[in-house]
Amino acid sequence: METLPSHITLAHGNGGYYMRQLIEQLFAKHLANPILNLAADAATLPPINGVPMVTVDGFTVQPLEFPGGNIGSLAVHGSVNDLAVAGGRARYLTLSAIIEEGLPMAQLQRVITTLATTANDAGVQVVCGDTKVVPRGEGSGLYLTTTAIGERVCEQPLGMTNIQVGDTILVSGPVGDHGTAVMLAREQFGLSGELQSDVANVYPLCDALYKLPGLRFLRDPTRGGLATVLHEIQQATKLGIWLQQQAIPLRERVATLCEILGYDPYYLACEGRVVAVLDNQQADAALARWQALPQGEEAAIIGVVTNEPQRVVLETELGGERVLEELADDPLPRIC
Amino acid sequence: METLPSHITLAHGNGGYYMRQLIEQLFAKHLANPILNLAADAATLPPINGVPMVTVDGFTVQPLEFPGGNIGSLAVHGSVNDLAVAGGRARYLTLSAIIEEGLPMAQLQRVITTLATTANDAGVQVVCGDTKVVPRGEGSGLYLTTTAIGERVCEQPLGMTNIQVGDTILVSGPVGDHGTAVMLAREQFGLSGELQSDVANVYPLCDALYKLPGLRFLRDPTRGGLATVLHEIQQATKLGIWLQQQAIPLRERVATLCEILGYDPYYLACEGRVVAVLDNQQADAALARWQALPQGEEAAIIGVVTNEPQRVVLETELGGERVLEELADDPLPRIC
Repeated sequence: METLPSHITLAHGNGGYYMRQLIEQLFAKHLANPILNLAADAATLPPINGVPMVTVDGFTVQPLEFPGGNIGSLAVHGSVNDLAVAGGRARYLTLSAIIEEGLPMAQLQRVITTLATTANDAGVQVVCGDTKVVPRGEGSGLYLTTTAIGERVCEQPLGMTNIQVGDTILVSGPVGDHGTAVMLAREQFGLSGELQSDVANVYPLCDALYKLPGLRFLRDPTRGGLATVLHEIQQATKLGIWLQQQAIPLRERVATLCEILGYDPYYLACEGRVVAVLDNQQADAALARWQALPQGEEAAIIGVVTNEPQRVVLETELGGERVLEELADDPLPRIC
Repeated sequence: METLPSHITLAHGNGGYYMRQLIEQLFAKHLANPILNLAADAATLPPINGVPMVTVDGFTVQPLEFPGGNIGSLAVHGSVNDLAVAGGRARYLTLSAIIEEGLPMAQLQRVITTLATTANDAGVQVVCGDTKVVPRGEGSGLYLTTTAIGERVCEQPLGMTNIQVGDTILVSGPVGDHGTAVMLAREQFGLSGELQSDVANVYPLCDALYKLPGLRFLRDPTRGGLATVLHEIQQATKLGIWLQQQAIPLRERVATLCEILGYDPYYLACEGRVVAVLDNQQADAALARWQALPQGEEAAIIGVVTNEPQRVVLETELGGERVLEELADDPLPRIC
């Protein structure tokens, strides 16, 4: 079989020789595992222990590569994390790639290599995949979709409807890093490149709280950021959210950049953080568990669930109050 | 909540108000079932009976709607069928939609309505979903990805490596209907519109053969058509494939159109047909089972697996021989 050409062509999507070459020499080469079978139409999985859980996520981030990660690491963590905050451990991934004609093969290789390493580190196997090629000008390089399949680990029920007045709200680390890193990569502002996406597997953070009594709800604040998660809670519970601005971890670089460019960091995506809501009696225990993990060193208690007002309110450092409204226009599209 | 606007905007993908509106008023409205939970990050499934199976497929068909179906029916059948030919019955689907800014809301509604009806008819539930919106000019209306999860039904091992010299090859109905229907819809040739895609659930056809002794292999000939499936068999087995051209079911309209436009119908996609390879002792029994089904009335025995030559050879109606080469350039891209 020939070596791969320098760029993706439409023939890589036609089911014939070139598609077979792309799958064998790129996708299967990096993603190989005992379950993935190129000759089969479907994967046969080992029995799932306990209650099966599943989630799906599409990824359209632009640019495809950014400080701290690329669309490949995002596609693994996005689905693994959605299962984790729902109380489940991902075991298997399915992968769909919609590739634009003209994508440099070297870039696709970097992305798929990262995806493979990330999956391996997270303990998940890519068990089946599909590739399609769309004509130049009908994509933006690469769109990925992953479905994560696993089993329930958390024995407590998790959900917004469990949330009660007086509950405490925690976040596992600084917010807005991913959104800011992607924005910098996109706009090439010429600013410091030390800002990195926080894209990471949040399963260890979630697992640290699964057995803590009084845990009500976990969520990774991705699209729409911290403010959007809190809004969803407010709308589902009809309660209020009261936040202490000075308690919310925020990197100085992110704060400065947002100030210069007019973004509100509380609406910017994180890809490796968790928001937890739990009984206030357990807040200190939860914080201690998180701070004991490398990923949770900067975790903080940031607010409380109130009866009134039925809004998301930020108490500013100077003692003022600012209402965080529901996101309408998109401040920063395509960050995941 | 407001009513949906006439077209998709970038704000429908931002995680905030408009995305919630789109999901509640369109996706969840049509796809509602007891497992789908908009407030959760992941779906919790009932226990899977037996051996779990999974498959994934991406859909980029252009145009989105064509005689006999649309990208919604294709996205359900594509994954349900991949599981069926691998010996499994699909129970659950995950759905990812990558929507282009500017897509008419009415068209999205037609597609999702069809998808919901098709899933219902096939006995599968959409258990979780994700939507992303990409800017105008970076998509082509709508890309869908579905993952089907189910359980193994066929107790015989199925696979190309089981195929032996002397085995019989069957096809469940006329080939090339889907490819031709999409081509007509795309090009608006002004030719007769009576040609329809064969897009359909092939599970009943597969299930009819699961218990037949000597069944070796099933495959739905989608991208690359019948010829590509036979090529994959040839390459996997290093045996030969000998076909009787006059035995291969082909609608006269498809044949005529292919002749006029210079396409080879054996390379055009089907979306509701099955190719079966089985012990020649069982060929008549298999044919009878298929012909007893509404979808299999035009089923036929089309060829045999040989030792030599190690190629896919078509014996023409006049007694000549034509080698069907492996597909390289794409005759008709984006048909699924």
